[in-house]
Formats: sequence, structure tokens, C-alpha cells
Amino acid sequence: MATVKLLGDEDLSAEAKAVFDDIRATRDSDFVNNFWRALAHDPALLKRTWESIKQVMAPGALDPLTKEMIYIAISASNGCSYCVHSHTASARAKGMSEAMFMELMGVVGMANETNAIVNALGVPVDEAFEAGK
Amino acid sequence: MATVKLLGDEDLSAEAKAVFDDIRATRDSDFVNNFWRALAHDPALLKRTWESIKQVMAPGALDPLTKEMIYIAISASNGCSYCVHSHTASARAKGMSEAMFMELMGVVGMANETNAIVNALGVPVDEAFEAGK
Amino acid sequence: MATVKLLGDEDLSAEAKAVFDDIRATRDSDFVNNFWRALAHDPALLKRTWESIKQVMAPGALDPLTKEMIYIAISASNGCSYCVHSHTASARAKGMSEAMFMELMGVVGMANETNAIVNALGVPVDEAFEAGK
Amino acid sequence: MATVKLLGDEDLSAEAKAVFDDIRATRDSDFVNNFWRALAHDPALLKRTWESIKQVMAPGALDPLTKEMIYIAISASNGCSYCVHSHTASARAKGMSEAMFMELMGVVGMANETNAIVNALGVPVDEAFEAGK
Amino acid sequence: MATVKLLGDEDLSAEAKAVFDDIRATRDSDFVNNFWRALAHDPALLKRTWESIKQVMAPGALDPLTKEMIYIAISASNGCSYCVHSHTASARAKGMSEAMFMELMGVVGMANETNAIVNALGVPVDEAFEAGK
Amino acid sequence: MATVKLLGDEDLSAEAKAVFDDIRATRDSDFVNNFWRALAHDPALLKRTWESIKQVMAPGALDPLTKEMIYIAISASNGCSYCVHSHTASARAKGMSEAMFMELMGVVGMANETNAIVNALGVPVDEAFEAGK
Repeated sequence: MATVKLLGDEDLSAEAKAVFDDIRATRDSDFVNNFWRALAHDPALLKRTWESIKQVMAPGALDPLTKEMIYIAISASNGCSYCVHSHTASARAKGMSEAMFMELMGVVGMANETNAIVNALGVPVDEAFEAGK
Repeated sequence: MATVKLLGDEDLSAEAKAVFDDIRATRDSDFVNNFWRALAHDPALLKRTWESIKQVMAPGALDPLTKEMIYIAISASNGCSYCVHSHTASARAKGMSEAMFMELMGVVGMANETNAIVNALGVPVDEAFEAGK
Repeated sequence: MATVKLLGDEDLSAEAKAVFDDIRATRDSDFVNNFWRALAHDPALLKRTWESIKQVMAPGALDPLTKEMIYIAISASNGCSYCVHSHTASARAKGMSEAMFMELMGVVGMANETNAIVNALGVPVDEAFEAGK
Repeated sequence: MATVKLLGDEDLSAEAKAVFDDIRATRDSDFVNNFWRALAHDPALLKRTWESIKQVMAPGALDPLTKEMIYIAISASNGCSYCVHSHTASARAKGMSEAMFMELMGVVGMANETNAIVNALGVPVDEAFEAGK
Repeated sequence: MATVKLLGDEDLSAEAKAVFDDIRATRDSDFVNNFWRALAHDPALLKRTWESIKQVMAPGALDPLTKEMIYIAISASNGCSYCVHSHTASARAKGMSEAMFMELMGVVGMANETNAIVNALGVPVDEAFEAGK
Repeated sequence: MATVKLLGDEDLSAEAKAVFDDIRATRDSDFVNNFWRALAHDPALLKRTWESIKQVMAPGALDPLTKEMIYIAISASNGCSYCVHSHTASARAKGMSEAMFMELMGVVGMANETNAIVNALGVPVDEAFEAGK
């Protein structure tokens, strides 16, 4: 199904193996999911993507679970089935309950609904929304 | 710019006026933004949309600020400028700091980036992501 | 604002002028909107696009007004402001009432809402939907 | 494949069962498709979505078959495979012929084509399209 | 899985057969992929689409391999799995190496990332970008 | 219009200033466009984005002009007006002719057209496209 071969551990270049080692150490798990096995054909892309994700998804002004739910919301809006599955699994591992997931569905639906209606009605930005920045 | 006339308070039908009254009471503010003034041409659509939004964005398993940030994330991914502006204003009114907003940008960027790469590589869903539901 | 110069009638190549002549004759109007003035830099693209549109939007198994409303619905979902404006104008010229337009908004909102929720829930296609083709 | 369990009739809460009863009565059919079985985890979301859909897709200024074809057009543009399948089945049940479906394909293709070209050329809205509202 | 029957050679109308003959002659191969077998229900749509593709993808100011990679990039951004697969196969047949494909992934990811961030930040177009056209 | 203040050179933190210095040195120009002035609120995001872009857009298996045209194609498909403008300016600075730009439009239109039709027809991937990877 993939457009490239998913690389097994035995297929990795030294640079790709180093990234896999960091993924395993960071997550404290031996499991490396298919996304990284596809990216591993390009060690520079693999490394840049992994280090960006690690930085972006770390605790900061927003907590990691909130970030995972935002990731799900975007992936659903973009129609990326793999991303929805992987980040739903991550969000659950970080404590997302079924009630939280279903409430997220409500927001996902509402935002996509009003985005399209606003575009069709060509609603101009209210002056009040320009203030306060 | 809008594809319909934005209705002033004096243009409203009785049913639309009742919804505007509820918007004002719920938000404890006299200001009614342009989105509702465009929807007001169809009181049934206005009422259904407002009541859905009121229900969806209320505190529940997720807090209202988290919901506003999810709304921004989706609106940015869909390219709805009005929605980005209105929900960024709402999120700030609910306490979103500049640090939170910029960190949100990181997640928005990353999710859109990996969604597209995953689609291009045709990555199949890992069996491990099917479990735990 | 455009990324190419919008061509005036005096700027047209002979091939582009021939297409403009056909647009004017077909629509029985001297007005040629900006889209064609941008495309006119490439007479082959201009001609192919115009002839395809003329063929696609002609009366057939679906009537022209239905086709214009479908065009609005897609343009809103894709966030193309120009397209929303031009096809709303066309739909009105072909008889779309305000009630029809607002009811279209309801469908546009609903479809975008459920599309995103379905993607997030990963709903598998029911066997029943495979039948009957 | 779904990110939540699809609920069987025996898994439903009382509120969810009431919605399923209304779906069956409204459609005069015992069949309840997977979308509702996924939404049923959240009876409030299930009820709101079903009642909105029932209201939006009912005969009004637009007929139900036209609405189904608009739904297909949006779902195709957004890449929601489930939605395309379910609404194509609904449209056929309401009388969409193969000729109508294929002609719809022409409009779907054309709209997506010109949406993207217009965005790339940054075509400004003609003054003429602002009039008449 | 398709919403229409994929037509075999024995199912084709005379007009559809003529297009299939041209596809085979142009590509110097007996293989006709599923996209055309679905479009073949509407010989006019089949013919228009094939002739447009043949014209658009031909060598010109851009070479065919560059065009195939642009096609992959758009298909990934839109989430069209079939299109990603078919145009990746075409690009490889025209000489795309694994290094080129992976580098394309980098651009696909980056563009989708910055598109969404720019939308969220509402960045206004710099005057400098208006010049030079 | 922006949802954050665009930072002037005098507003920059030391880390942001260092990135601006590198942008200026790399491009051999004093001009720093608005995107970076918005990102500068978050020096970590600014730095990561700039270094990724610098790496991704550098000459490699694909040449920089090809990459700019791919960026335009995606930005148009996603409806990011700012991105279309900035990357069209970059592409022209790197040698994109009007003929190349208009031919790019043809591919952009065609890909978006067929993406949506394929989604609506639910075309299954041909076995032949799975081979050769």
C-alpha cells in the first residue's frame, strides 16, 4: 500500500538507526511505527521531522494531551486516516477519555461546518477582532 | 464583500431577533459579530447553528479555551480567515497567552506537514493503533 | 493582488481574442470577468478551460442552476472566495432565490461537518453502500 | 478500522436508542448505518447531528436529490470516502441516474480545477459580482 | 469499492473504445488503469479528461517528470491516495529516483506546514511581492 | 489583518535577531518578509522553520526552481494567498518564465480536477501501481 518500502531495523543506514534509537529511548518503547519506517529512506528528513515533533509535542505552554487532540482535529479535517489513528492512540495513552474524544468530535464538526459557511457567505472580519493583539 | 447583506438589528425577523437576544444574554455583551448577521437571513439555520455552537463550546470534558484553540487549528488548516480571526479573539478573551498561541502554531504546522507526507508515502496504519478502543 | 497582469481587450493575442468573442457571444454580454483576463496569458489553457466549462455547465441530465449551486458548495469547501462570488452571481442570474441560497448553506455546513467527524472516527463503509451500482 | 467501537443495538444507552428509533421510523427501514453506530457513544452529539441532518436534508427550497448530489460533491472535494459512498447510495435511492452522477463528476472536476487556478493567479473579485445581493 | 462499475474492454461504447485506443497508442502499452475504466461511463467526460491530460502533461515549458512530481505534491496535499499511487508510478517510469521522491516529501511537508501557519497568523502580503509581474 | 503584531527589527529578541541576520546573509538582501516578522514572536519556532526551509529548498536531487513551483502548486491547492504570492515572487527571481507559470497552472488545475473525481468514483488502486518500489 505504501509508495515506498517500509524499512525494517536491518535496512537502516547508520544515521537512520541513530534516530530510531532516540525514538525508542524517548518513548521508552521498542515499537517504532510505520511513519518513521517510510521516512527512513531519507535520514536527513527523518532526523529533522523527528526532532521537530519531539520539540513541538513536548510539554510547554500547552500540555501534551491538548497537543495530541489538536493533532487529531487537524488530521480529521485534512482526511489523513493514518494520522488520525496514530494520534488517537497517542492521545488515549496520555489520558484522553472516551468523553473527551467524543466532545472533540463536536468541535471538529462545528469548526468544519462554520468554516465552509463563512467562506460561502464571504463574511468580512469584524473590526473588533483586529484589536487586542 | 459578503455574498449576502449583513443584517442590522432593525432588519431582523422576530425569530432572528430572539436568537440575537440569546447571543447577547449568553455572552453578556451587546456586540453581535458579522457571522450571525449573515446567517440571520435564515432564522432556522441561525437558531440551529447558534444552539449547536453554544452546546459544543460549553465547558464539559474539555475546557472552553482548549476548544477555541482546536477551532483556530482547524480554521487555519482549512484557510478560513474570518474564523481564525474570530476564534483567536475568543481564545484570547478566555486567557490564551501569546506563548500558547505561538506553541499552537507549532502543532498546526507539524500536523499539516506530516498529514501530507503520510498521504504521499501511503503509510499503512500500524496494527498497534487498532488496539485499545 | 493578482500574480499576473489582468489583460485588457487590447492586450489579447488573436487566439485569446477568439475565445473572448465566444464568451461574449455565448453569454450575450460584453462583460468578461477577471478569471478569463488572467488565463488569457496562455491561449491554449484559456481555450481548453472555457470550452470545458461551456460543455460542463450546459443543460443536460442536471440543469444549469443546480450545477451553479454545486459549484458554490465546492468553492466554499475549498475556500475560493473569487469562485464563491462569481458562481453566486451566476446562480442568482439563473434564478437562485435567497431561500435557496440559505438552504444551500445548511447542506454545505452539514456536509463539511460530517465529513470531518467521519474521518476522525474512521467509520468503515457499510456493505449496503456497495450494492446497487 | 474505526477509532471507536461501532455500537450494536444491544450496546445503546436509552437516549441513543431513542435516536435510532427515530432514524428507523423516518427512513422506514431497520438498517442503521455505521456513522450513527460510531456517534452513539455520545448521545447528545448523536441526537444533535441526526436532528440537524433531518432538518437540512428535508424537502424545502431545494429538493432532497439535489441536496444529496451537493453532499457528494463536497465529500469528494474533501476526500471523505465513507461520505461519498453513503450519499451516492442515498442519491441513487432518490432517483439519481448514472447520467446524472457522471454529469455531477464533470462539475466536481471543473470546480476543483478552477478553484485552484484562481487561487494561484490571485484573481480579484470583479465589482460586478458585488452587486445584486 | 468504486461507486461505479469499472468497465472492461467488452463493456465500452464505441466512443469510449476510441479513447482507450488512443490511451494505448499514446502510452505504447496495453494497460489502461482503473481511473479511465470508471470515467468510461461518460464518453464525453472520458474524452475531455484524457485530451486535457495529454495536452497538460506533454513536454513544454516544463518537462514531464517535473509535472508528475507536481501532480504527486498536490494529490498528497488533497489526500487522494489513488492519485498519489498512479502518479508516483508514472514519475518513477519517467526517471524519478528515490532521492528525488524523498526530497519532494520535504517540500510537500514544508509547504503544507507554512500554508497553515500563515493562515493562522493572517500574514498580509508584502508589497514587494506585488512587483515584477 | 494579522492575528499577531508584525515585529520590526527593533522589536526582536536576541535569538530572533540572529535568525534574521542569517536570513539576510543567506539571501544576500536586507529585506525580511512578513512571515518571519510574525513568527519572530517565538524564536524557537522561527529558528526551526527557517532552518528547515533553508535545508529543504536548497539545491539537491531537485533544483530550487522546481521546488518553488511545487510550493506554488500546493499553496494554490490549499488556498494560501500569501504563500502563492511569496513563492511566485521567489520562483520568478529564480527564472520562472510566464510560459512556465501558465503551464504550471494547467497541471495545478488538472491535478485538483482529477483528485476530486477519483475520490467521488472511489477508484481502487491498480495492482500495477504497487509494483516497482
